[in-house]
Amino acid sequence: MIVGIVGLGLIGGSLGLELRSQGYRVLGVSRQAATCERAMARGAVDGAAVDYGILASADLVFLCPPIGAIPATLTQLLPHLQPQAILTDVGSVKASIVEAIAPHWPRFIGGHPMAGTADQGIEAAHLGLFRDAPYILTPTATTPPDCVEAVAEVVQSLGSHLYTCSPTEHDQAVAAISHLPVFVSAALIASCDQEPNPKVRELAQQFASSGFRDTSRVGGGNPELGRMMAQYNATALGRSLRAYRDRLDHLITQLEQQNWDHLEAFLTATAAARPAYVAPHPPPSPPTDQPSPTGGSL
Amino acid sequence: MIVGIVGLGLIGGSLGLELRSQGYRVLGVSRQAATCERAMARGAVDGAAVDYGILASADLVFLCPPIGAIPATLTQLLPHLQPQAILTDVGSVKASIVEAIAPHWPRFIGGHPMAGTADQGIEAAHLGLFRDAPYILTPTATTPPDCVEAVAEVVQSLGSHLYTCSPTEHDQAVAAISHLPVFVSAALIASCDQEPNPKVRELAQQFASSGFRDTSRVGGGNPELGRMMAQYNATALGRSLRAYRDRLDHLITQLEQQNWDHLEAFLTATAAARPAYVAPHPPPSPPTDQPSPTGGSL
Repeated sequence: MIVGIVGLGLIGGSLGLELRSQGYRVLGVSRQAATCERAMARGAVDGAAVDYGILASADLVFLCPPIGAIPATLTQLLPHLQPQAILTDVGSVKASIVEAIAPHWPRFIGGHPMAGTADQGIEAAHLGLFRDAPYILTPTATTPPDCVEAVAEVVQSLGSHLYTCSPTEHDQAVAAISHLPVFVSAALIASCDQEPNPKVRELAQQFASSGFRDTSRVGGGNPELGRMMAQYNATALGRSLRAYRDRLDHLITQLEQQNWDHLEAFLTATAAARPAYVAPHPPPSPPTDQPSPTGGSL
Repeated sequence: MIVGIVGLGLIGGSLGLELRSQGYRVLGVSRQAATCERAMARGAVDGAAVDYGILASADLVFLCPPIGAIPATLTQLLPHLQPQAILTDVGSVKASIVEAIAPHWPRFIGGHPMAGTADQGIEAAHLGLFRDAPYILTPTATTPPDCVEAVAEVVQSLGSHLYTCSPTEHDQAVAAISHLPVFVSAALIASCDQEPNPKVRELAQQFASSGFRDTSRVGGGNPELGRMMAQYNATALGRSLRAYRDRLDHLITQLEQQNWDHLEAFLTATAAARPAYVAPHPPPSPPTDQPSPTGGSL
């Protein structure tokens, strides 16, 4: 099988390293000739070019550009693909991407490897990035089953834990545990920093300790990444933010009513609920719609 | 100077160890005879008893019981104190405590050492607990200056960084950076855990990673401690929660209006504001109302 990778950054480069190590032939495309050269030098691809024509023979293509660049990438890529080629992507939101791609290429299945590091780019690419990390595939009613099977087989060869769900379920789950925390945390920083009494704000800065540090961490992160979360997952994030505001309003009401027993019960429930989110997760059982890998079916 | 300590737990025991190491004579009171014995065995006190009469000779008494036990403690303690004795406490909220104590003992000054460990009790007490940690004193217009001076001198001998502010300023600052994060974080857990679609909730649990882990940490902590924050710092916490909700509502509005530039600017501002809260703080300059230690002024 020949695998194509469009976008040779951390994710694309790491995919190339893994797949080449397993004997796949890997061909890459980058906007930058220098990146193509570095990807070849690092052994992430067998060949790379700035021209999409290099992917004419690919059986499976991973789309790894920034989310905002996907429409432009598609326009350039699709004319070069052979009709049976399978297309997948690695974007961190799914409904909007699936809606943008599937009508133009029916043999597409959305994907999201939940792996990353603080470092970006081809130099950060490394073997093992996807090992034991969730990798979510989001087939729809119209996704051809052989496309699901083929991509699932490659994903499992990465050592990832494979999950399948609908694009909307993916986006809602990721909004709740990844995107919502960014905005919850940013609002915490903003509310402290807009304290009207300068003496209180100065004291707050001096007294802040590990509780504030942890709760504010993701709200002090990359603003462009936060903007992308909002822009590309707006529907699910809005749903999460409104549900969050309801919980917050409930807490404020209980505080104003001096309902201490209720507040303690609320905090007892959150302490009991948290471990299910932060404890190590067993690998998922194989989805029932997911056949065992059959080996080289493409 | 003879120092009394009521409550021989982590804070009271550690105070005793520090002050004895500097030559103060330290006398302790605990409700439990066994705790008195352990405090003596560990060298945290020169003497200890369950009877408050042991503190009849004390020049300075640290009140270190749980906040909720302070009124009952006062009733038992005050009849035994000599009239010139100075009283201070170590509670994590100040306005309600100062209001409860100062009318009954004018030679009182509220205090809050911002130090602690996960472990509690006399066995957890140790030298160095207060070193390089903030220690806040909250004098009011009626606090006798010699009481401020005497407690400040002892606090500085602990190696703490001394801050002075009003009880209300203390409570508002602590609400913002310590108590608010608990409720912001708990509401995050609750909103995820009350997800109406069970499939989405299950996926959220499986996909949650470091962002959710950090942002949810203090909301999954000790429910009794959270209740105490709400109960004893209700005014300041309510103020912080309402300011926080305003910021959150603002974010939701921007999201609904698809104002991506504004959201990015908001996140850029929070990323810029955060370091002032989490970077190491230089020790405070000596407060202008704070004389240099004069040594043995009591």
